[in-house]
Amino acid sequence: MAEAAPIDVRTSPDRYRHWKLALEGGVAYLTMDVNEDGGLRPGYKLKLNSYDLGVDIELADAVQRLRFEHPEIGAVVIRSQRDRIFCSGANINMLGLSSHDHKVNFCKFTNETRLAIEDATENSGQSYICSINGIAAGGGYELALACDQILLADDGSSAVSLPELPLLAVLPGTGGLTRLVDKRLVRRDHADFFCTTAEGVRGKRAREWRLIDKLIPPSKLVDETKKIAEEIAAKSRRPRDARGIVLPAVERTIEGDTIRYPHLTIEVDRDRRAAHFRISGPTTPAPAGTADVHTQGAAFWPLALARALDDAMMHLRLNETEIGTWVLRSQGDAAQVETYDALLAKEASNWLVHEIVLYWKRTLKRLDVSSRSLIALVEPGSCFAGTLFELVLAADRSYMLDGTFEGSNQPEAQVKLTSMNFGPYPMGNGLTRLATRFLAEPKHVDELKDEIGEALDAEAADELGLVTFTPDDIDWEDEVRLAIEERAGFSPDGLIGMEANLRFAGPETMETKIFARLSAWQNWIFQRPNATGPEGALKLYGTGKQSKYDRNRA
Amino acid sequence: MAEAAPIDVRTSPDRYRHWKLALEGGVAYLTMDVNEDGGLRPGYKLKLNSYDLGVDIELADAVQRLRFEHPEIGAVVIRSQRDRIFCSGANINMLGLSSHDHKVNFCKFTNETRLAIEDATENSGQSYICSINGIAAGGGYELALACDQILLADDGSSAVSLPELPLLAVLPGTGGLTRLVDKRLVRRDHADFFCTTAEGVRGKRAREWRLIDKLIPPSKLVDETKKIAEEIAAKSRRPRDARGIVLPAVERTIEGDTIRYPHLTIEVDRDRRAAHFRISGPTTPAPAGTADVHTQGAAFWPLALARALDDAMMHLRLNETEIGTWVLRSQGDAAQVETYDALLAKEASNWLVHEIVLYWKRTLKRLDVSSRSLIALVEPGSCFAGTLFELVLAADRSYMLDGTFEGSNQPEAQVKLTSMNFGPYPMGNGLTRLATRFLAEPKHVDELKDEIGEALDAEAADELGLVTFTPDDIDWEDEVRLAIEERAGFSPDGLIGMEANLRFAGPETMETKIFARLSAWQNWIFQRPNATGPEGALKLYGTGKQSKYDRNRA
Repeated sequence: MAEAAPIDVRTSPDRYRHWKLALEGGVAYLTMDVNEDGGLRPGYKLKLNSYDLGVDIELADAVQRLRFEHPEIGAVVIRSQRDRIFCSGANINMLGLSSHDHKVNFCKFTNETRLAIEDATENSGQSYICSINGIAAGGGYELALACDQILLADDGSSAVSLPELPLLAVLPGTGGLTRLVDKRLVRRDHADFFCTTAEGVRGKRAREWRLIDKLIPPSKLVDETKKIAEEIAAKSRRPRDARGIVLPAVERTIEGDTIRYPHLTIEVDRDRRAAHFRISGPTTPAPAGTADVHTQGAAFWPLALARALDDAMMHLRLNETEIGTWVLRSQGDAAQVETYDALLAKEASNWLVHEIVLYWKRTLKRLDVSSRSLIALVEPGSCFAGTLFELVLAADRSYMLDGTFEGSNQPEAQVKLTSMNFGPYPMGNGLTRLATRFLAEPKHVDELKDEIGEALDAEAADELGLVTFTPDDIDWEDEVRLAIEERAGFSPDGLIGMEANLRFAGPETMETKIFARLSAWQNWIFQRPNATGPEGALKLYGTGKQSKYDRNRA
Repeated sequence: MAEAAPIDVRTSPDRYRHWKLALEGGVAYLTMDVNEDGGLRPGYKLKLNSYDLGVDIELADAVQRLRFEHPEIGAVVIRSQRDRIFCSGANINMLGLSSHDHKVNFCKFTNETRLAIEDATENSGQSYICSINGIAAGGGYELALACDQILLADDGSSAVSLPELPLLAVLPGTGGLTRLVDKRLVRRDHADFFCTTAEGVRGKRAREWRLIDKLIPPSKLVDETKKIAEEIAAKSRRPRDARGIVLPAVERTIEGDTIRYPHLTIEVDRDRRAAHFRISGPTTPAPAGTADVHTQGAAFWPLALARALDDAMMHLRLNETEIGTWVLRSQGDAAQVETYDALLAKEASNWLVHEIVLYWKRTLKRLDVSSRSLIALVEPGSCFAGTLFELVLAADRSYMLDGTFEGSNQPEAQVKLTSMNFGPYPMGNGLTRLATRFLAEPKHVDELKDEIGEALDAEAADELGLVTFTPDDIDWEDEVRLAIEERAGFSPDGLIGMEANLRFAGPETMETKIFARLSAWQNWIFQRPNATGPEGALKLYGTGKQSKYDRNRA
């Protein structure tokens, strides 16, 4: 499959090819109607409401826009335009044609989108309801599993299924196994039967086994779904009378190896396989109150930067797979960053500020699960305070210059903590990055609260355990260069596995299980000849030929 | 590498080739002195105290024997006979020569042995202390990580390291990454540096970064280790004056496809790739008290059966990798099984009974992490009560005959719960199998306590959710045959991944992280050309050639 054309995750409802978005009575209806000929790449047809990354990019966009553009929406119904098929999951021919890294990237993005759906339900007052008329197979049922309620037509044929193992010799790639037993708490023997039965389960057994929430006669499905959704919407804490903000396309220019966004420039160093992120702090202090935040809308610095970071990560993940290290720098006035953090903290109950903070949380989580080595560099002129300091904490390691660069009149580098480092941005494991970092010394996290607002130089930051290494001017260049070059020399696979294990110490959640456990198994299986070899099930699917499996159990 | 000769995990100290076991002052000294020419397979030399499965089989045997044969031992010191090398980890040439399934099997067994060391420390009053003089690299340091205390010579050269990623493009295979950040709570940026630095870390930094517990001047290492171990042993709750029992070699005969142990016979059905386990209940009631348990020793039914099951699982895992399904049946008198459970429960404070229960816990956990499909069949004449009923709960699914077989005069099948189902045998996730099964209805687990001792027929067991399916005589044969045949038709890799995800719902622990998360990443990486391809790092290690890695990040 030609993978030359870069994939762009920027879209908007007027450009959707696969989804219809309609709003009525506080409820959004997201109707899946996949355009068979609208695949992101040539070589496959998106039959039977099956999807590829392009379909999921639109879904992710809709989920995001509903939060920011539609404060009046309190419930979202996901349904299908087709008569007897809800969604048949990820397109098999697309998977068969895709490279290993595209398959893995695709699964990661769809997982992030499902988690965004759950985050909207849990934290934004936009509850997702899945209304299934027909077959919800594989990724189709996994989409349902991400919703708060699953309604199924009781018509003797509508069914839910996870046929990946029996038909394709792979696992459900979007958290299906984990959500079955850890979210819906399906008994493991029922789950075992369900996941090995290609045709799935329907009717009463589906409800008794907790696979769905409600069985509804087919003639009543539309009305009953509407009624349920409107009841939920009516109870939502979303501000019905507020006006949303508009999210225009993220501004981006790519010239050679330079990618420019508002507040973010990225330089790609192909020799060292590194992308250098340079984040700019705000140039003016935060506005005084929420009215100005609404007026600034998508231009409000924290929101504009989050959108830039989010788009940049997706661009690099999908289109720059050989660039294995992301180096994170900032420049600007830490005091101004602090004013924005102060506003975010003070106005946390405002719906828009609340959404912006949740978006930063998700953006930082996207960084945590990006399969890139992350190195933060704290230099004179940087502004790693509060929210931006989370980037340093997210890095696999950090370097902070002790002192100044010879011949420069810039003062010493400093970092600052704000209240935003102590709660609003939990990692997937449910803990803040500081709590995860200091699992060995939980009291230290409390002590660090006393440092909020203090300008911490390299010596202080080192003493407090906030940075990894603090070379001085003499050692800085060599040490940083060696760290980046060394990373480029290691096996990418080994680094991915190592980072995925070291980044998430402490408690596990459904989210970390999905990314750290289920994804690893799926990655493994995606490499096994039984699935992806020339005679593997993914390759032979639809040809009528049977795979002859290697029978050894590893 | 020829893998034809079956691997036998049965051994005893008089046959050890790689370890010396000495007992003194309540302390056991396990001294590693690997015989270079003593590899389990031809083709590699076990240089520099590196190990293969054969070395670990002896270690596992020693850990097990110390518990049963030496109640007087309260601390165990692991050390090296060599001067400047503690242990250099798994032998690289062995790994390079091994098949994928042997590598995975090897890692799983070493993981189980490390967990047995931690279980002995935590639950048996035998604390493990690792005394390192020289280099503890890779698996050598992972062995140290399994110990309760790590002592390191402060001689400017003794060091600990995890060089797998930089040298071999793989991950530490025995829980190293997880234990670093989740057991020793090493800061993730320190862990990142440590795991990417082939030469490792020594001296004060090793202690400051929590990689070791104590730095000791080299001249004092032996004496100080002894002193620390004797202090710990003196505080142990082990019964100094008790006499241990002897563990003779497990009796096993293999004739064609039949494997016979005391209380267990296994028939291998190669056509359906299934091994049929037939467990025999006790033929006499449990003895009246602990004196008789000691007298019976290794012949005591629960201990003899646990040893048989344990050996059988290892035999099948290592030597019958194409046999993908284990079918579990029992025969005997459930009432007599109950008398044994009653004894185990009543005499739980007796050191030997305590060890037997802990051993059952570990044996059941070995079943949980075995990469085989588990199907339990509950038929007339079976004796699945209490401890044996855990096997039904451990199965991926179970079938229980409703009614009797036509023409048979055996009464209906029954199952029984005992108090042993409600605590003593937690899974790796820390919950009982019943609690894991009923995560959706925690109250139901309490209600089930009212059923202790009740003979539950198929209808009752089904109603209580204790079995999966209850076909009658007419459907039984077809349904069971289809289930077994269906399993044989699926991809083994897909089944392994599916089962690993469905079996461990609920909380995660270090143990489940090691088996379900870290192992999956390691499996994946073991399949990647960067590690195991013809030009991969594992293949080229020691040749002086550099691997040219595929740089794509998945």
